[in-house]
Amino acid sequence: MSLPSRVKIVEVAPRDGLQNEKQFIPTEVKIELIDRLSRAGFANIEAASFVSPKWVPQMADGTEVMNGIQRRPGTIYSVLTPNLRGFEAALAAGADEVVVFGSASEAFSQRNINCSIAESLARFEPVAQAAKAAKLRLRGSISCALGCPYQGEVPIASVVDVARRMLALGCDEIDIADTIGVATPGRVGAVMRAVSEAVDPARLAGHFHDTYGQALANILAALQAGISIFHSSVAGIGGCPYAKGATGNVATEDVLYMLNGLGIDTGIELDAVVETGQWISGHLGRKPSSRAGNALAARKEQPA
Amino acid sequence: MSLPSRVKIVEVAPRDGLQNEKQFIPTEVKIELIDRLSRAGFANIEAASFVSPKWVPQMADGTEVMNGIQRRPGTIYSVLTPNLRGFEAALAAGADEVVVFGSASEAFSQRNINCSIAESLARFEPVAQAAKAAKLRLRGSISCALGCPYQGEVPIASVVDVARRMLALGCDEIDIADTIGVATPGRVGAVMRAVSEAVDPARLAGHFHDTYGQALANILAALQAGISIFHSSVAGIGGCPYAKGATGNVATEDVLYMLNGLGIDTGIELDAVVETGQWISGHLGRKPSSRAGNALAARKEQPA
Repeated sequence: MSLPSRVKIVEVAPRDGLQNEKQFIPTEVKIELIDRLSRAGFANIEAASFVSPKWVPQMADGTEVMNGIQRRPGTIYSVLTPNLRGFEAALAAGADEVVVFGSASEAFSQRNINCSIAESLARFEPVAQAAKAAKLRLRGSISCALGCPYQGEVPIASVVDVARRMLALGCDEIDIADTIGVATPGRVGAVMRAVSEAVDPARLAGHFHDTYGQALANILAALQAGISIFHSSVAGIGGCPYAKGATGNVATEDVLYMLNGLGIDTGIELDAVVETGQWISGHLGRKPSSRAGNALAARKEQPA
Repeated sequence: MSLPSRVKIVEVAPRDGLQNEKQFIPTEVKIELIDRLSRAGFANIEAASFVSPKWVPQMADGTEVMNGIQRRPGTIYSVLTPNLRGFEAALAAGADEVVVFGSASEAFSQRNINCSIAESLARFEPVAQAAKAAKLRLRGSISCALGCPYQGEVPIASVVDVARRMLALGCDEIDIADTIGVATPGRVGAVMRAVSEAVDPARLAGHFHDTYGQALANILAALQAGISIFHSSVAGIGGCPYAKGATGNVATEDVLYMLNGLGIDTGIELDAVVETGQWISGHLGRKPSSRAGNALAARKEQPA
């Protein structure tokens, strides 16, 4: 069972995490969060979203955030851009990578963006072309790839099909997302192996939620299937919009603890991430939802 | 990667779980907990401890608990018996299996029972002989097999050595315990494979704590190493005495959710376990620390 020797973590707390928090986090806190994360060594941070503030008020300050951060050489700052208008703003703000979202579930696509999967991908074409023309990196995100709150099971063939289309759109990286956290490791391995036949696994990422506590086991299964890019959120920031009070994004601290134990290099300092998790959780008025983070912090307070 | 088709879960909440809770749980609640668990289908329940109530007041009512439960045919009711006096009481109370504890860490053995590993195993010899003579099952538990709060790393050779001695004492089953939850999957696989060379893996169990969020990934690694018995605690009952406020035993609901997803048979009804987790957590005055349990309960309250 050979695992990759190096893994890239995409830290999603500043965008995916904070977007799913009820309160608006002040711009200067977002900027400090991103700067703390880049100093901790993250090579890729999902930093902002350029969508209509009418729909996502939490992310209305994307331009100010991007202008305020201290750019660390070697770190990729990714932003969400659902349309050309968002893309132009992202380009002006100096994004390194733009992200487009599709779903592997027809039911989810219809209920969330009022169109079919095929239509949603067609809408991204101008954004993809503009990104390529501007020489920005392009990432495609496949939501509900491992289960859907509306249709339940999602066929593996649908995930492969969307991945293939995203590759054709020019995506440099494609993430397979378990949006509602329902997957278990056998299914994750099967999906990752199937998509790897259509897309170079070096371009594939796993985005897991810990709603059912399965995220680390799923990451292990994905590692065993040859995946070497994973998304996570410091302190597990970002709840699950489909199950009130439930855990959402897998916590970065838990992922790093496992990868460190497996001898897999990430280039990230776990201690700095634990501190950042405590700091941002203070701003959110709660305890981090990272088990490794809390245990490491407790160990520091009361050495054995 | 072939996994076992059937797994035995040893439900430890009534003993290992409740013993590590501060409050004394009334005898009738303990009895109802055990009966709910046996009705849910558990084939093995750690039911009580026959130790001095001076040391473990939470477990002072072991005889009353054992006499009060409704014995389900096919379920093994295990009890802890550190010495002959405890063994006699356990035998009189109708225990099916007695459990003795050793440690793979010299430092832990010295600090917790004031003797070396070898001395502690010698002390168990009369209990083991009595159990064999009475035709009771005998289980040996190896604590700190994957890390120690005092000495840190624990050599794999020590775990193998203790397992070999427990086998020689007549143990029918031996559990490898990550008492402080520090292990990651690579180490777990290595330890399980090494012990399997000395002891038939069909007799080996994994006892994992979720303190660092690693338990399910570790169970997956153990399954891949051929282990088919796991300990868990409904609602994750039982904190971690070595890190205040941290998570202890892995939650049964999370384990069952993963095993169900992997198509592994346990004979246990997950819904009944989720309900039991909510019920006993109510008695403890808190929310279950099971992610799958909480997500499944939330899904029931608000269908998508």
